[in-house]
Amino acid sequence: MKLRFVLAEAALELVPKEAWKHPAVAADARRRGREPGSILLDRSTHHEAMLRLKDGPKRGRPDLVHSSILAVTGSPLYLEGRVALYVHTSGDIVLEIEERTRVPKSYNRFRGLVEKALSEEEGSGLVKAYRSSLPQLIKKLGADRVWGLSTQGAERSLDELAEEVVRFERPCVVVGGFPHGHFAPEVVGACDELVRIHAKPLEAHVVTSRLVYEIEKRVATAGTR
Amino acid sequence: MKLRFVLAEAALELVPKEAWKHPAVAADARRRGREPGSILLDRSTHHEAMLRLKDGPKRGRPDLVHSSILAVTGSPLYLEGRVALYVHTSGDIVLEIEERTRVPKSYNRFRGLVEKALSEEEGSGLVKAYRSSLPQLIKKLGADRVWGLSTQGAERSLDELAEEVVRFERPCVVVGGFPHGHFAPEVVGACDELVRIHAKPLEAHVVTSRLVYEIEKRVATAGTR
Repeated sequence: MKLRFVLAEAALELVPKEAWKHPAVAADARRRGREPGSILLDRSTHHEAMLRLKDGPKRGRPDLVHSSILAVTGSPLYLEGRVALYVHTSGDIVLEIEERTRVPKSYNRFRGLVEKALSEEEGSGLVKAYRSSLPQLIKKLGADRVWGLSTQGAERSLDELAEEVVRFERPCVVVGGFPHGHFAPEVVGACDELVRIHAKPLEAHVVTSRLVYEIEKRVATAGTR
Repeated sequence: MKLRFVLAEAALELVPKEAWKHPAVAADARRRGREPGSILLDRSTHHEAMLRLKDGPKRGRPDLVHSSILAVTGSPLYLEGRVALYVHTSGDIVLEIEERTRVPKSYNRFRGLVEKALSEEEGSGLVKAYRSSLPQLIKKLGADRVWGLSTQGAERSLDELAEEVVRFERPCVVVGGFPHGHFAPEVVGACDELVRIHAKPLEAHVVTSRLVYEIEKRVATAGTR
């Protein structure tokens, strides 16, 4: 079993052109000595500039993407090469993290890495970036079965889901990389099944760490006793 | 049951005086428009300045502290007021997070909050800061039993540990908030038992999220099915 883990519609993008001249963005870019179009859109500093953006509430949360990535990359399952990790952004760019790579735990270093990858749309050796819709990515991954985690899905315990996931050779789990709202129809369409694992919405990194852990418990790893 | 969760000897401190004049620190402080003594020591930017510090490898990892805090505060157990969260730093300052408070998920906002709390040594309403050794803190918490998680402890599964923890009314779990090394003797002395939950060392946020999750599974919360 090797898990394909996809963070979908992630709230990760460079500042879009319509916000370049907003004072909140311009000041931040100047402080960092960068062009507005080469920095990540981030609600924690660009909130005012985001009020008029389309789908604003779903965008500009690189912190959420970072914590979700760390929840995967810190796990023994990942460190033993049993997880392939993909970040699909709301703008249809996929960041593919090279197997077993340690992503920077410092947010500001992570930000620098992602800004570079998104600017070049190719990325360095550790993080490849390319254009792809979520359905195209899923197709490429050649998964046996695809579960999407969503509060709109059918109620199942995480235990039960993990039991099922490990029965497949190439399972794929999709978690939303945005702070509010639901999967777009094309993402729902790319999943075989939508599953709801908790009565309330959970943060992406919480869902991610619990899911990876429950799967890891059912797979022999070198650290297992 | 209400869990007392303590991140102990956390690698969180303001830049110490002996490093204020190092170019790596001075440039960073200038860039941020701050005094060197009022910014957090951070290996990701101050590495060169840390080479000569005593216990250097154990220090300057605010990112690790942040991800561990988020692993607690994102959990339903915490959100329902079943976890009291304390960060004890290597310099014997305790940050006490007010119950059910949402700590900033943006690292740079978190940094600002902590810098303020450590500078004033009192903190705002959300985060109180006061001087206390780890044994003093443990005594104050009035715990029934204290488990320290350490690779030097006795091997036990996390399942088994969680089963035991929830049998107490006021259990306390201590996790190391540093990247390498082991608990200081006085921390070991303050624990009733040291437990090793994995064959390999795990990152603090990974240990934290798994532990809170296993405890939560055994406690009825509003989201439980």
